Amino acid sequence: MKEKRSIILKEDELPDTWYNVIPDLPEPLPPPMDPPEGYSRVNDLPNLLVGECLKQEMTDQRWVPIPEGIQELYLAAGRPRPLYRAKNLEEKLGTPAKLFYKSEFYSPTGSHKVNTALAQAYYAKEQGFERLTTETGAGQWGNALAYAASLTGLECTVFWVRAVYRWKAERLKFMQIFGADVFASPSTQTEIGKKLYAEDPNHNGSLGIAISEGLQDAKNDPKAVYCLGSVLNHVMLHQSVIGLETKKQMEIAGEYPDVVISCLGGGSNFGGIALPWMHDVLTKKEDIKFIAAQSEVAPNLQGEYKYDFADHAEMTPMLKMYTLGHQVTMVPIKGDGLRYHGSSPILSLLRHLGFIDAIAYPADEIHVFERAREFVLAEGFLPAPESAYSVACAIDEAIKCKETNEKKTILFNVSGHGFLDMDGYAEKLGLIQPPERA
Amino acid sequence: MKEKRSIILKEDELPDTWYNVIPDLPEPLPPPMDPPEGYSRVNDLPNLLVGECLKQEMTDQRWVPIPEGIQELYLAAGRPRPLYRAKNLEEKLGTPAKLFYKSEFYSPTGSHKVNTALAQAYYAKEQGFERLTTETGAGQWGNALAYAASLTGLECTVFWVRAVYRWKAERLKFMQIFGADVFASPSTQTEIGKKLYAEDPNHNGSLGIAISEGLQDAKNDPKAVYCLGSVLNHVMLHQSVIGLETKKQMEIAGEYPDVVISCLGGGSNFGGIALPWMHDVLTKKEDIKFIAAQSEVAPNLQGEYKYDFADHAEMTPMLKMYTLGHQVTMVPIKGDGLRYHGSSPILSLLRHLGFIDAIAYPADEIHVFERAREFVLAEGFLPAPESAYSVACAIDEAIKCKETNEKKTILFNVSGHGFLDMDGYAEKLGLIQPPERA
Repeated sequence: MKEKRSIILKEDELPDTWYNVIPDLPEPLPPPMDPPEGYSRVNDLPNLLVGECLKQEMTDQRWVPIPEGIQELYLAAGRPRPLYRAKNLEEKLGTPAKLFYKSEFYSPTGSHKVNTALAQAYYAKEQGFERLTTETGAGQWGNALAYAASLTGLECTVFWVRAVYRWKAERLKFMQIFGADVFASPSTQTEIGKKLYAEDPNHNGSLGIAISEGLQDAKNDPKAVYCLGSVLNHVMLHQSVIGLETKKQMEIAGEYPDVVISCLGGGSNFGGIALPWMHDVLTKKEDIKFIAAQSEVAPNLQGEYKYDFADHAEMTPMLKMYTLGHQVTMVPIKGDGLRYHGSSPILSLLRHLGFIDAIAYPADEIHVFERAREFVLAEGFLPAPESAYSVACAIDEAIKCKETNEKKTILFNVSGHGFLDMDGYAEKLGLIQPPERA
Repeated sequence: MKEKRSIILKEDELPDTWYNVIPDLPEPLPPPMDPPEGYSRVNDLPNLLVGECLKQEMTDQRWVPIPEGIQELYLAAGRPRPLYRAKNLEEKLGTPAKLFYKSEFYSPTGSHKVNTALAQAYYAKEQGFERLTTETGAGQWGNALAYAASLTGLECTVFWVRAVYRWKAERLKFMQIFGADVFASPSTQTEIGKKLYAEDPNHNGSLGIAISEGLQDAKNDPKAVYCLGSVLNHVMLHQSVIGLETKKQMEIAGEYPDVVISCLGGGSNFGGIALPWMHDVLTKKEDIKFIAAQSEVAPNLQGEYKYDFADHAEMTPMLKMYTLGHQVTMVPIKGDGLRYHGSSPILSLLRHLGFIDAIAYPADEIHVFERAREFVLAEGFLPAPESAYSVACAIDEAIKCKETNEKKTILFNVSGHGFLDMDGYAEKLGLIQPPERA
């Protein structure tokens, strides 16, 4: 059989269940806990999250049916998405490794975030909410939720980490086209925001602070509910659609991965591509190496494994996770979606048990963007800055295979496109040209 | 059967032939001619165009095999592309019409232009050329050729209409990422450019001028060949892959279009979606209404049907086409890809014979962008400014169906995405927000 350049699934091959790794974990997942003092954040959760999502957060059902309404929304968002063999890149690298990548960059808003945004919006609408509130770092999540709100007939308010809001003017416009109400965070719309803004009107903000603002905003309005784009178990569940599709595709290609790679901030795209494969490792003793690509600015998988808050203002329950501390400050980077203090409790436990490796790339991001450019020149698709970490890690692994002459099969996720991040590329690659060169 | 929300073709359903309408035309297509005076442009064609493309330009073969190498490149570029039923939009409009749209916006560089860019680059490489030269208006074509050159290992030089070069900084960076050498046109790199630049260093430029520059540059370098992104017969041929896929998809959906719509500048995306359906009209007497959506700034289908040059400097042969005059000046618009003085000889003949209707939207583009926003809010995909004309026309037709209660099936092409055109949207929709609203 001729080796396939792309593996496309038809619309009736869209998975009709999500995969929940919790019942397959070698140890029970440590539950959310309350801090030693203060009110019960755990009891407060039903006031913060969509009911069905909260139910999914705790479920031990392995295969969770995807409601037909959400399947329809997935189709409308262009799922299933193709899997590609990076043949051109393999040739240019001269590696004996086979490289496969999943095309989450075909998303309408630019990333895999739509997979959980659509599910959360759908359930929120069912529950009678009229408005979604959220935080965003890189802007991909806020944009995905604004999109999902638009398609399901809801309003959407976004608190956007100020340091990123400043340089992503295009992304802001895109959220506005979807009708979202967007604030730079810390904002003057919430108590915690007001306090930090008063202390420093140029405050860079952080994902932790923006989460606090989104939570407070929703708490103050009974018609509103807060949605989180990463970290939590129900987000991992929704994102499993990426890996489930990919498993079907690799089977069609007649291939099985030795290595599965993606970038990891809170963990949503990493969990999405990795956990359905982790199922094989946990239940069938398959041998797959998982590598999370991170930034030295936020190497949370190299932090401490302990209970910590998910937000700056300590409004969330404490989660057992690898964390750098919920009030840590981190310098802005182009791959801003990776700049979060903690990583998903599920992925943290798996990391703790030795199932996940991690690598942290230097804060200057030069290597990452140079690798991304190699990918663009060979494959033609422009990765988002965050996805560039995944690409860089995959190329680095492929080059190692060349040195050791190992014919590994490497699977990686390209979680988003970089069309709205051209400035990041220009800056990191030094693409300077006079404004009207003739 | 449940109505389908999307129709996806698998990789082995990629068409393996292009469709050439020439043998099915009711009248012979008027050939390129030389002007009454001066050297023979017709005899000069082999020095200007890729050999295989020139052969295809004249062929009367109805089904032209797509070489395996080009099929591979089409797969790498994400073909076949899904067809979507705009169910959400239909509901919001309350129209009895069924709306289907083709997703050329999934292109790696942002538009359908890759379909002919890859073919031309492939044939140029085969013929031993090392560099491609071209013009670009909106930037989509130049970007597509830069991409195709990168994937096939060629260099690429782009002459970009200065008025557009000025406001599309992101698009310029994207071309640079692919390694293209980009000049604002009129440039100081060619005779014709130098002359016009000297007369007015702020010259807005035009597609006609940029074509002349691309032609001159290629003529001066035996290793270089010029590629044109629209108008010519071989471009219509390559783009037929859009319509051929769509025909398979509509058949799967169990639907047949009453109306086929797209925007039309030179005609490449319109021809791409329309001509394979035109085959049914010409050979099976099917009744389909074809509508070309244009701008009042460049309503070339309402111009004169006559022999005219394709470029400003009169380096091309004269083509029998609807034209506004090859040295006309046209004010810049956001949908700049529609701003060309003439339209494809094939489409012009079909227009002349009454097979194609045309509508020209006002130069302020407000209606077009407002319609595009309705599409975004319902369907979630952001059309390129040019594609917004197609969307606007489709929505206008759907609203007419509501008024007359006609259950028409309307098929339209969304030829590209607008991720690099956010400023155009912001300006036309009045999306103004303080830079750091808190």
